[in-house]
Amino acid sequence: MEGRRVAVGWAARDPTGVLSPYSFTLRDMGPGDVMLRVLYCGLDHTDVHQMRNEIHMTIYPLVPGHEVVGEVMEAGKDVEGRFKVGDIVGVGCIVGSCGECICCKSNREQYCSKMVFTYNGIDVDGQPTRGGFASTMIVHHKFVVHIPKKLAPEQAAPLLCAGVTAYSPLKHFCGEEKGLKGGVLGLGGVGHVGVLIAKAMGHHVTVISSSNKKREEALEHLGADAYIVSNDAREMDGAVGSLDFILDTIPAVHSINSYLSLLKPDGKLLIVGVAPQDLQVSTTALILGRKTIAGSFIGSIADTQEVLNFWEEKELKSMIETVKMDYVNKAVERMEKNDVRYRFVLDVHGSDLS
Amino acid sequence: MEGRRVAVGWAARDPTGVLSPYSFTLRDMGPGDVMLRVLYCGLDHTDVHQMRNEIHMTIYPLVPGHEVVGEVMEAGKDVEGRFKVGDIVGVGCIVGSCGECICCKSNREQYCSKMVFTYNGIDVDGQPTRGGFASTMIVHHKFVVHIPKKLAPEQAAPLLCAGVTAYSPLKHFCGEEKGLKGGVLGLGGVGHVGVLIAKAMGHHVTVISSSNKKREEALEHLGADAYIVSNDAREMDGAVGSLDFILDTIPAVHSINSYLSLLKPDGKLLIVGVAPQDLQVSTTALILGRKTIAGSFIGSIADTQEVLNFWEEKELKSMIETVKMDYVNKAVERMEKNDVRYRFVLDVHGSDLS
Repeated sequence: MEGRRVAVGWAARDPTGVLSPYSFTLRDMGPGDVMLRVLYCGLDHTDVHQMRNEIHMTIYPLVPGHEVVGEVMEAGKDVEGRFKVGDIVGVGCIVGSCGECICCKSNREQYCSKMVFTYNGIDVDGQPTRGGFASTMIVHHKFVVHIPKKLAPEQAAPLLCAGVTAYSPLKHFCGEEKGLKGGVLGLGGVGHVGVLIAKAMGHHVTVISSSNKKREEALEHLGADAYIVSNDAREMDGAVGSLDFILDTIPAVHSINSYLSLLKPDGKLLIVGVAPQDLQVSTTALILGRKTIAGSFIGSIADTQEVLNFWEEKELKSMIETVKMDYVNKAVERMEKNDVRYRFVLDVHGSDLS
Repeated sequence: MEGRRVAVGWAARDPTGVLSPYSFTLRDMGPGDVMLRVLYCGLDHTDVHQMRNEIHMTIYPLVPGHEVVGEVMEAGKDVEGRFKVGDIVGVGCIVGSCGECICCKSNREQYCSKMVFTYNGIDVDGQPTRGGFASTMIVHHKFVVHIPKKLAPEQAAPLLCAGVTAYSPLKHFCGEEKGLKGGVLGLGGVGHVGVLIAKAMGHHVTVISSSNKKREEALEHLGADAYIVSNDAREMDGAVGSLDFILDTIPAVHSINSYLSLLKPDGKLLIVGVAPQDLQVSTTALILGRKTIAGSFIGSIADTQEVLNFWEEKELKSMIETVKMDYVNKAVERMEKNDVRYRFVLDVHGSDLS
């Protein structure tokens, strides 16, 4: 262990998911690695599910965090020309993949079967990977992106998971077409950036929500063009056959047949939220109108760089609430009550981590 | 009624679905119409569902038949240059649409909300449309296609519904790519032409069937490259992640999650069979791999002409059993027991219809 660096962070120790200070040893730097000082890190629902061992076998102590913005402290010799000390960089949901398969060779490494998650994965040294709720990370440069100069680092954090999760399917399935009629289903961490991105791509955007509560927010603060209450049969009937796509961010069981009815012929329902049980789909709803249901998982590293550049170019603003690490357990509690607009970002470097 | 022509055909009179001779009066010819002498007509499961009032309100007497091959007897003045007396032509599932909507204006008239079915629809004169189980039909030329010269008319019949149902989604969703790995799920009327078309498009084709019964047929007679028994866990496991697309022709409830697992990342499940209840879909199965489920309904008139030309160009052979009209009730019975390889085609002109 001699010569290895110690990082300080906050970890969950058991399925209560409560986070508390935790020190650990970083792996050795390889020639392709970047060491970064973590500045900011977003908090999302997946973090909580992992902290509580609700997804798959959590390795405790677990250091979460997969929307990491940091500053390069050291770069391996193979990284020259790509990153240098002092660069502001980002790390998203994955930090490894096989590099050999068709997905890795076609900028789709997020679908590589050997993909390594940023935390609760197995690192190259056989130890668990640890995320951005910590002072320091060592990551292979292939999984590190540049934060554009005009983007404040805390603004960039939510783009590294939520942002690319919305951006990637819109780009992949709706291509370069402008002026489509799109819907965004669910207005949480992914939904709110989905509205901003779809608008900035030049689409007409309708927010679809179960109640009227978010109408003002959607229309006045996020710039959506229209708002539909999904529990209002009249509003839903009025929108039948009107949308080219729906970005479906709902991480729960919901009636996709009713949303399929809102699509035009050749319309696409793009699912990015994992529901805990199967959804019910009518074959007739798909067949009559040649409609598509597709899933999409985060995005590639190239997509991640793109959404960051897009955010800078379009001068978009993430809606975040920045808090210190000692507030994180309270932040989890508030996030679970949807009491955040729309993302908590931890000021990791500005926090006392010990 | 004076001057109108009388047609003789076979009709279902009630929900028993039993067919018997029936005479009716044709509508007047319009300037855009074609009158054709029916030569051959395919029989499919939809016909039986309609005959028995199992889909939507059947108007009795019902004259079925939507895979119609005929000879032009008369052409309206607006049809000049497109069809002339003696031409061998085809009529598929639809004989009308609004002509004004975005679907009609983009060669997707099969998705027009005012689309008129070839039978059990409402014709321009307000009377029920009647299909190809009859001596004569009058159809607007926009819904009539040319049967290529080298194609025997009885060979063309199954292409007008089953053929285009398989061809259209393969063309639309798999484009011009060659050498894809494709699956065909279900080996009935649509599935068998699906195998022939996918092979002729240059793909590697795996037939997926619930038992081993059709293995020889698939590999030796239809030219499939591989065969998987869906009830054999070992065979299914061996094919996980191996297919670019699956043409799913099963008109019943089935487990699409297990078929989604056979797809590669970015793979597509193309559904053309209507299941009587909703199917269950795992969001995870879609998201991890950016997989698509899409529906497709028959095809456009342009697609119909294309599949006929494709059949001629590739020198494909439909597998049909030609029978006379007085055998039709027996043919229905046999079709329901899958006792046909793979399509009954009625020799309408060669039958005594009275």
